[in-house]
Amino acid sequence: MDIAIPIYDDFTALDAVGPYEVLSRLPGARVRFLSAEPGPVRTDNGMLTLLAEDALADVPAPEVLVVPGGVSASHFARDPVYVDWIRAAHETAEWTTSVCSGALLLGAAGILDGLKATTHWLDYEELASFGALPVPTRVVEQGRIITSAGVSSGIDMALTLAARIAGDDVAKAIQLGIEYDPQPPFPMENDEAMRERVVAMLGA
Amino acid sequence: MDIAIPIYDDFTALDAVGPYEVLSRLPGARVRFLSAEPGPVRTDNGMLTLLAEDALADVPAPEVLVVPGGVSASHFARDPVYVDWIRAAHETAEWTTSVCSGALLLGAAGILDGLKATTHWLDYEELASFGALPVPTRVVEQGRIITSAGVSSGIDMALTLAARIAGDDVAKAIQLGIEYDPQPPFPMENDEAMRERVVAMLGA
Repeated sequence: MDIAIPIYDDFTALDAVGPYEVLSRLPGARVRFLSAEPGPVRTDNGMLTLLAEDALADVPAPEVLVVPGGVSASHFARDPVYVDWIRAAHETAEWTTSVCSGALLLGAAGILDGLKATTHWLDYEELASFGALPVPTRVVEQGRIITSAGVSSGIDMALTLAARIAGDDVAKAIQLGIEYDPQPPFPMENDEAMRERVVAMLGA
Repeated sequence: MDIAIPIYDDFTALDAVGPYEVLSRLPGARVRFLSAEPGPVRTDNGMLTLLAEDALADVPAPEVLVVPGGVSASHFARDPVYVDWIRAAHETAEWTTSVCSGALLLGAAGILDGLKATTHWLDYEELASFGALPVPTRVVEQGRIITSAGVSSGIDMALTLAARIAGDDVAKAIQLGIEYDPQPPFPMENDEAMRERVVAMLGA
């Protein structure tokens, strides 16, 4: 199974690496990180660099597409190199997926028009600007398109996808293999004060 | 806050990238990926390459140490370049932590002797060989040493650590920022049949 993860400067590492860690464990999986040109791609905080080993143009028809988000997602949602590639790859892909603001690139490619979709809670409005119907759900399945919420949600999305591709038992074994039995230290607090704190940290 | 993540060939990407994604959001954080020599480091399945931008020797005294695991952890637990660096860095570090089989490197450095610790469920026996007392808990705190269970547990560990370093409100904001409100598609099944399936997948 040929899985492509397009990355771009200032993407968010966990958006990509969460699904990679799950999907690379599918029997016969081949995961490739792609970029406009092969080479190093720096993440949003400048502290980590991943290598894209192939150009987007070299992998025109992956079976699975995972588009991560990042602070630069709005920018790359206007970059035809990425958007045209996504639109074309989606035509033949078995599954087209996004994590976090990666949904904006799917939206820009015109493939979320009229569909329910999710993204990071900060980006619902921009997602709607592409004709998508934002829903505050962690993983949203619409046929062969699956979108997921902020950053860490890509792990849940990818386990859901693994089950669709290879069956529940394989997905459960992957879940046990990566010991995904999460115990967040805090209950989720998504009130106005906490959201302001997050936005302030982003601006820092 | 100077945070060091030593990586090595055949490490598991999510072990490192989960905590990186959390800890890089701490105010004033500087996360560096280190290796014996600076350069590309390939993950366990050969499908992803991260860049280590500094040599271990160039960062002798980080304030926080996060040691990821991988199929090669047993091997690197016998490599003095890594083990001696960990032992020395731990002397001055405020926090020494591990994810998954990264605990074996801490064990080999002699810093888990007589302490409760955790690791991937496959590695309890080897962890005990270093004098540690393995416990099947997701995150184990022993003073300034924190170990965590398999792969994905590094996210929980890092949020716990973020709270210790910067307080609960900062940790909660990071949790909301990465939208860590996990909803695994399956309940955790850790019975004999499922464990055998995981081991078979590792051997594939």
